[in-house]
Amino acid sequence: MRSLQFTSESSSNGMIERDFTVGDVPGVLWSPASGADRAPLVLMGHGGGTHKKHPSMTGRADRFVNGCGFHVAVIDAPGHGDRPRSAQDEADIAELRKAQAAGEPQGPIVVPFNARLAELAVPEWQATLDALQQLPEIGADGPVGYCGIAMGTALGLPLVAAEPRIKAAILGMMWPDALVEKAKQITVPIEFVLQWDDELMPREACLALFDAFASKEKTLHANAGKHFDLPRFEADSAARFLARHLGRTAVAAQA
Amino acid sequence: MRSLQFTSESSSNGMIERDFTVGDVPGVLWSPASGADRAPLVLMGHGGGTHKKHPSMTGRADRFVNGCGFHVAVIDAPGHGDRPRSAQDEADIAELRKAQAAGEPQGPIVVPFNARLAELAVPEWQATLDALQQLPEIGADGPVGYCGIAMGTALGLPLVAAEPRIKAAILGMMWPDALVEKAKQITVPIEFVLQWDDELMPREACLALFDAFASKEKTLHANAGKHFDLPRFEADSAARFLARHLGRTAVAAQA
Repeated sequence: MRSLQFTSESSSNGMIERDFTVGDVPGVLWSPASGADRAPLVLMGHGGGTHKKHPSMTGRADRFVNGCGFHVAVIDAPGHGDRPRSAQDEADIAELRKAQAAGEPQGPIVVPFNARLAELAVPEWQATLDALQQLPEIGADGPVGYCGIAMGTALGLPLVAAEPRIKAAILGMMWPDALVEKAKQITVPIEFVLQWDDELMPREACLALFDAFASKEKTLHANAGKHFDLPRFEADSAARFLARHLGRTAVAAQA
Repeated sequence: MRSLQFTSESSSNGMIERDFTVGDVPGVLWSPASGADRAPLVLMGHGGGTHKKHPSMTGRADRFVNGCGFHVAVIDAPGHGDRPRSAQDEADIAELRKAQAAGEPQGPIVVPFNARLAELAVPEWQATLDALQQLPEIGADGPVGYCGIAMGTALGLPLVAAEPRIKAAILGMMWPDALVEKAKQITVPIEFVLQWDDELMPREACLALFDAFASKEKTLHANAGKHFDLPRFEADSAARFLARHLGRTAVAAQA
C-alpha cells in the first residue's frame, strides 16, 4: 500500500488543513480544529478545469467540517491542479476550447475525455482512501461519503460503484452516456443535483442519469438557473444529507 | 367582509389550536403557544379525500409552528372534512372509485373534478385570508406562504396565481392540464415535490407543470418512491424554504 505523506499543515476558520501526497497524487485533508474523535470521512471530487482547493471545494469543506464534524479529502484529478497534463490531456482540452469558442455541443468531447480520466482516477481514489483510513482519527471502519458534481460525478460515480466503503453520495450534472451502466449498480442513497436551464448539459440527459440509479433512496434537486448557478443552499442540503447517512447532526446547516 | 368566528380552542404540543369558521367554511388555525409576536402566516391545502386535521396537515403544522414560529391555517376544501358533498361531488367521487377499482387512469377524472373545486376554493381562501389578517397576531402586512401537494396544488396553485399576498409556495404532484396557464403567471419562489415512481401521476406530467412556473427561483425535489411515499424530510425542507422566504429561522428543521 502506498502510504500518505503530509507535506504541510495550517489552520484557519475552525479547520486544520493538511496537504498530502499518496504516491504522486497530491491532496488536501480538512479536519475539525477541535481535534475530533474518530469521525466520518467525505471524499470530494472537483469540477473540470478546477482543482482541490477551488472555492467550490473549500466552501463545502467548511460546511462539512464545521457543520457536521467530518473529515473532508480532495485530490487533484489527473491533469488538474498541481498535476502535469499529458499530451492527450492537452489535445482534449484544446478540442474542448474549440467547441466552446464555436458554441458547439461539449458532450461529445467531455464524455470520452472524462471517461478516460475516470479510468485513472478511480484507483487513485481507492489508494488514497486506503491511506486515509490508516490515520487513527479516520480509521478503517468508519462511514465514508462522496460529493462531486459535473466532472466530480464523471470521475466519482464509477468510484461509488466500485467502492463498498462509500455509503452515500451527492452527484449530478453529467451526461449519462459513459455512466448509466455503473449507475445501475449503485444502491446507496443518492442526492442528485441538476440545473433546470443548464446551457451545457441537456435536462433530459441528467434526468436519464438520475433515473438509472438502483438506490431505494434517491432524491433529485433541480433548480432554475444555468450550469454555474447552483444555489448555495444545495451545499447545506448536501451537509444534511451526509449527516443523515453518515451519522452526525448538521449543526450549522440549518439555514 | 365575512368575519372569522372562533368556535373552539385547545392547546397541545406547544401549539394553540383554534377552530374557526368564515361564513360556512370551517378551518383551523395553529399558533405558537408561547404567544408569538406578529408572525408570518402559512396557508396549507389538504389532499383529495382528506381534511384540515389529517396527519399530513398536523405533522407539517408542528414543523411550521414549533420549528419556525409561524401561524398555520387550513380550511376544509369544498365537499371535504366537515363540509357537505354536493350531488356533483358524489358523482365525481363515484366515478373516481370506479376508475380506481378498475385500475384505470385517474387523471381524466381528477383533473376536471379538482378544477371545479378550485373555482369554489380560491374565493373561499381569499375570504379566509382577509379575515385572518384582521387578527392582531397576523396583521394585514405580514408575509404569507402556501403549502399544498396533489389536490392541495390543484386548488392552491390558482390561489397563488391570483393572490399577490402569497410570497412563496410549496406545491407538487398534479397533472399540468388545468394548471399550466396559471403556473406561467406565477413568479414567487416555488419548491415543487414529485415522486419519481408515482403510480397515479406520470412523471412527465409533473415535470411539465414544474417547467411552467415563471419563477426565477424554483426548486424541484423528486424522490424515489410511489405517490404516498413522500419522505418526511421533505416537510423539514418545506419549513426551511418558508423560513428563508418569509423571514424566520427554521430552528427545529435541521435534521
